[in-house]
Amino acid sequence: MSKRSDDDAHLVETKIASELAFAGKLLEVRSDKVRLPNGGTGTREFVVHPGAALVVPVLEDGRFVLERQYRYPVRRVMLEFPAGKIDAGESSLATAQRELREEAGYAATTWKALGTIHPEIGYSTEFIDVFEATGLTEVGQALDDGEFLEIVTMTEDELLFTFDCGGFTDGKSVAALFAWRRQHRRKNA
Amino acid sequence: MSKRSDDDAHLVETKIASELAFAGKLLEVRSDKVRLPNGGTGTREFVVHPGAALVVPVLEDGRFVLERQYRYPVRRVMLEFPAGKIDAGESSLATAQRELREEAGYAATTWKALGTIHPEIGYSTEFIDVFEATGLTEVGQALDDGEFLEIVTMTEDELLFTFDCGGFTDGKSVAALFAWRRQHRRKNA
Repeated sequence: MSKRSDDDAHLVETKIASELAFAGKLLEVRSDKVRLPNGGTGTREFVVHPGAALVVPVLEDGRFVLERQYRYPVRRVMLEFPAGKIDAGESSLATAQRELREEAGYAATTWKALGTIHPEIGYSTEFIDVFEATGLTEVGQALDDGEFLEIVTMTEDELLFTFDCGGFTDGKSVAALFAWRRQHRRKNA
Repeated sequence: MSKRSDDDAHLVETKIASELAFAGKLLEVRSDKVRLPNGGTGTREFVVHPGAALVVPVLEDGRFVLERQYRYPVRRVMLEFPAGKIDAGESSLATAQRELREEAGYAATTWKALGTIHPEIGYSTEFIDVFEATGLTEVGQALDDGEFLEIVTMTEDELLFTFDCGGFTDGKSVAALFAWRRQHRRKNA
């Protein structure tokens, strides 16, 4: 899988023109005209996203810190790791540290990068940098106005059981758990 | 995590009004005015998606069938499991069977549901039903006009190694691999 990109000319699409198709309060959509690998043209519409950071916070006793938050697009309360959008000029590590503090109410002494996930490659530019946070101390939440969420702590076995039962379906959080388990090679994850 | 929804009144947002904010060639965005848990109001913008199906195709020798496809929003060739949007009136299993045949060029005798993933709960209604397909036979691809992709087969160890090296970052596919490993409890995944 380490092919050089010039080997992929039969797959790559290149930009011919780009226009802002929609600018809402939250979402920005661009519509690009592209050159296809066979020389033809196509249209690609996608959400422009600044990128995000996600934190896998692990307490000293091994429990994860997670959030329960109502996610309007899927009309349900979702179980997820703390995460949020990168602010302009912010590093993804700084985002992770800010979101852990503001949303979950924890500070951490030790941060470790666990890799990057692309959550929606069909129609979003979003990437999510994933970090593990350990050496946690409670500092109190500082939620944004209109942000409502509940903090829960779960052991790894409880979280895996919840996944197996269909109660942990947030793609970014599942991928992050997998990345964390790979890093720790716990039970040869 | 099996709380009844009426326990979650402190988290749930309810629809006050909804409008079509953008209708492009590919994407539809709605903007809803919502009642927040504290009685206030807010705006939620999100992509309306019909849902999708993803297939984890496993050959008789244990190799996975995957695709390499250029994904314009993230400007790179991505390694992913076959997947696609549910057509109107189609079951997600029928979508999975169609995508495996059209994109990857395989038919399967045995299908097993591995669960559901929500890839982008912040701004999309999309869900992805995940299936394992076994008993595979090659039937030849039938790609859509303007669809370019390459089929690769990889052992589980090769795919895990690729993940560990940062070459397998598609969120839906990573979550699907995790679901598949949990189902099989291979190496206590």
